[in-house]
Amino acid sequence: MAPAEPNALAFRPKGEPPVFEEERKGWKGYIEWEKYPEKKKQAAEILKKYDFPVRHQPPEFQLQPLPKTNPILTGERWKQYHYAMGPNLEKLPDKSWEYVKRRSPRTLSTCSSSLITVNRRGYVSHKRLVESEITPNKDHFVRNHGGIPEIDPQEYTLDISGLVKNPKRLTLADLQNEDLFPRQTNTVTLQCSGTRRMEQIAVYPGDGDELINAPWAEGAIGNARWTGVSLKKVIKHCGGLVDGADNLEFYGADTYFKKGQAYNYVVSVPWRKVKANEVLLAWEMNGEPLPKIHGFPLRTVVFGYIGARSCKWLYEIKGIKGPSQAPVQKKEYLYYTPQVGKQNAMYSNGFSIQDMPVSSAIMSPTDMDQIVHDGSVKLKGWAYSGGGRWPVRVEVSGDGGSVWYEVSPENMSTKYFHGWRLWEIEMPVDAEGWLEFCVRCWDNALNTQPTFVRSAWNWDLHVTSSCHRVKIYSMNRSRPQTAARLKLLEEKGMSILPITQPLEIDLETDEHYDEAMEAMGGRDPKE
Amino acid sequence: MAPAEPNALAFRPKGEPPVFEEERKGWKGYIEWEKYPEKKKQAAEILKKYDFPVRHQPPEFQLQPLPKTNPILTGERWKQYHYAMGPNLEKLPDKSWEYVKRRSPRTLSTCSSSLITVNRRGYVSHKRLVESEITPNKDHFVRNHGGIPEIDPQEYTLDISGLVKNPKRLTLADLQNEDLFPRQTNTVTLQCSGTRRMEQIAVYPGDGDELINAPWAEGAIGNARWTGVSLKKVIKHCGGLVDGADNLEFYGADTYFKKGQAYNYVVSVPWRKVKANEVLLAWEMNGEPLPKIHGFPLRTVVFGYIGARSCKWLYEIKGIKGPSQAPVQKKEYLYYTPQVGKQNAMYSNGFSIQDMPVSSAIMSPTDMDQIVHDGSVKLKGWAYSGGGRWPVRVEVSGDGGSVWYEVSPENMSTKYFHGWRLWEIEMPVDAEGWLEFCVRCWDNALNTQPTFVRSAWNWDLHVTSSCHRVKIYSMNRSRPQTAARLKLLEEKGMSILPITQPLEIDLETDEHYDEAMEAMGGRDPKE
Repeated sequence: MAPAEPNALAFRPKGEPPVFEEERKGWKGYIEWEKYPEKKKQAAEILKKYDFPVRHQPPEFQLQPLPKTNPILTGERWKQYHYAMGPNLEKLPDKSWEYVKRRSPRTLSTCSSSLITVNRRGYVSHKRLVESEITPNKDHFVRNHGGIPEIDPQEYTLDISGLVKNPKRLTLADLQNEDLFPRQTNTVTLQCSGTRRMEQIAVYPGDGDELINAPWAEGAIGNARWTGVSLKKVIKHCGGLVDGADNLEFYGADTYFKKGQAYNYVVSVPWRKVKANEVLLAWEMNGEPLPKIHGFPLRTVVFGYIGARSCKWLYEIKGIKGPSQAPVQKKEYLYYTPQVGKQNAMYSNGFSIQDMPVSSAIMSPTDMDQIVHDGSVKLKGWAYSGGGRWPVRVEVSGDGGSVWYEVSPENMSTKYFHGWRLWEIEMPVDAEGWLEFCVRCWDNALNTQPTFVRSAWNWDLHVTSSCHRVKIYSMNRSRPQTAARLKLLEEKGMSILPITQPLEIDLETDEHYDEAMEAMGGRDPKE
Repeated sequence: MAPAEPNALAFRPKGEPPVFEEERKGWKGYIEWEKYPEKKKQAAEILKKYDFPVRHQPPEFQLQPLPKTNPILTGERWKQYHYAMGPNLEKLPDKSWEYVKRRSPRTLSTCSSSLITVNRRGYVSHKRLVESEITPNKDHFVRNHGGIPEIDPQEYTLDISGLVKNPKRLTLADLQNEDLFPRQTNTVTLQCSGTRRMEQIAVYPGDGDELINAPWAEGAIGNARWTGVSLKKVIKHCGGLVDGADNLEFYGADTYFKKGQAYNYVVSVPWRKVKANEVLLAWEMNGEPLPKIHGFPLRTVVFGYIGARSCKWLYEIKGIKGPSQAPVQKKEYLYYTPQVGKQNAMYSNGFSIQDMPVSSAIMSPTDMDQIVHDGSVKLKGWAYSGGGRWPVRVEVSGDGGSVWYEVSPENMSTKYFHGWRLWEIEMPVDAEGWLEFCVRCWDNALNTQPTFVRSAWNWDLHVTSSCHRVKIYSMNRSRPQTAARLKLLEEKGMSILPITQPLEIDLETDEHYDEAMEAMGGRDPKE
């Protein structure tokens, strides 16, 4: 896909282009919004002049059959927001796309809400994602909300501000100074709350605003070893929180647009979570410097939470009372009941997604696979639970969720408090035809998954935690009739695949048919 | 859609084109195959020379997401069979298409296995099909297996042959002579066994050979008043059956291709069925001469059976022992168990579809409709049972099949032994969001329908008799929050539809949010 042309798709700037200056030397693509209410107001007034495309954007395919090929969601609306904001912002979509292209050739990924390449099965090849317990950096899913800032590490600082006793500005060197802060490495799975969203979309369409952002399948999850310092130590270094502060707000240098306003990416986590040493300020991912697309030079990694709280290109941490009032925290990542939708959704009647629930997926075989086997089929996948709970048991059903088989513990990868476990099982499969395999995980707190997508469908199509299902067409060669048919096709040089291709040969000889009819007493009763 | 060009799509005749003569003066498009084994053999040898397209034909979309728009299944393979057979047959696809175009402008229809226009909701507008108990001729579904013969009624004769005491040749005038045969009119529903096949395809792909023939939704059914004579009287007029004959074979003038062979369309019914006066030789449909596309000048109408037995352009009826060995009877219209498929299907391990089971459909609202209502929603549809059984009760569920509401008998159309009943119900609907409505019918023998598609899925995707389901998005204006949102949108000149279009306005004021948070004690516990 060629990078988008600025002003493509009939975008016309209205009036003299505004200039929003980059905030700091050595920080490309970082516009500071949160410190300047007047600038925010100016941006809102500019955005108000435009009639950005909504109705004809991709979300509408929700009400139509799913596209035959993977749709490219080019994010026209998001690009046009940038084009409207003048020279420093209009280049960001293209620049960001360049970073996406540097990732694994086989890894399709998303670099922002605008540049999403949808693969119905996820952004990385299915089988590849479960090849190793640790996900290689180039294969790790990416979900950004704005363009990718480029920050010179020499010019990098982090402000600790707000309700802390001694606000400080720290350099990267300060944070990496082991005399000040003990270094820490943890294996942590990050997951987009949109993982497996396609399953929800496929049965019931929801809010289009969410769809264009990340219509993921099972691939929006990855497991990495992150190195940095515990945020708790940094807060202690600043004398601790004051005045009843109970949350920490994270500021990302990326620009985030929402309903006609420009913001920086801002989220928060409770102090309680930080105190448990479950929030890392990380500069390394799997022993390498944090890739730019993953937040270089510094990001938070919040263990067991929705990926959205693991703020990238972090430039400020603020002590606050209550959760952040910023839109990503207050107005996004809300989980509704199935009866809430466009007609009645508010921010207060959804609950805020922080801790992630138990979930799992079958990554091999994949949906619609047609398998010739001799009485058993190997399945592979992942299982995860958030909030410090871990997968204890994985069960697979070959009949849609009635009879379950346990994965042997020796066929599950290492246990971590905050990491996924890969699993595999050789499932006995006697039945033929279309079977519905599904998987569920039990975590150490005995949580398990809802059985059907409908059981936990929600308007923004977040957190698809129902049992993951794949349909496979089973052909069991240990059954004589099937063995005979397969042998015949082989002799004739014909393939059983795809199963929907009609057989050109007769299905039975007249002699065999007559014998069978004789044996069953003909089609109709005699009397 | 323009008529297909002969020899289009790179079809190249091989060698000198053969000439298969039309059999009789005044019978255009009728090639007799069954009387001439040598001619059949010659046709098979010609067909063997070609490598007709299979792999890249439409059935493959079964393994992919369903197409975004209604696919036009142009039936290339079927056309090419005709092109290969020389001058008298190569014109048939185009001629047949001309007949299709004469039908109701709003009625999309099928005229043959080659010329199918697929409308996922059926070939006639949904709501229109249940507007009247009797389906107008132009709206009645059509399912043919070959091109449409044009028969001069003056030249028409019907042969009664085989195991009958006195074989006879009868003219149309003989049949219409009320001194010889009492005239009879019956209200009879005909249904393709592929009705609602799309529901089976949508969950599990099956045999592609069936798909290209008739990927119907709920519209492949119609109810008409047929006039003619009872076949029983005609057989009696020929002195009755002899030598243990127990079936009657019907010969249609259309040409039918199957696995490299050419045939006439031949099917059979048991004598037991005929004796019950449930097989009509009909020349009138709803008081008009039989339309050409429906079998002019004479067809059989077999009450309560699959439509396939109601043979059109009937030219011969033969007394036989056991069911017909012709391919339509022996090798088609077989119903398999879900474990039978390409790997093990034979003709003898499917059962032959004759009597139709109980079934029903919701025709309004339609799938994915988004409905603003005040606490109730009107549903309309049809219900039918075959074999002389009739719909006694129709029940509708608004929750996918748990709680059922009965349709009042006064909201059901007239009872017939062999006709459908239309029904409507004003359903109380309290819940909001996506609801799954489904319907089931109980016939007078207490038969009712399987609950889920999977319960009765079969390889050839025949007879979808499971509860018919539609998803609707319910917005209940009698709920204050929904009423307020709808009022707000109206004031702002914004539409709630489509529901997937993101709302550009804020979902809640900051003040309301703060009050709501206060009332719930904030997002997190205090201690």
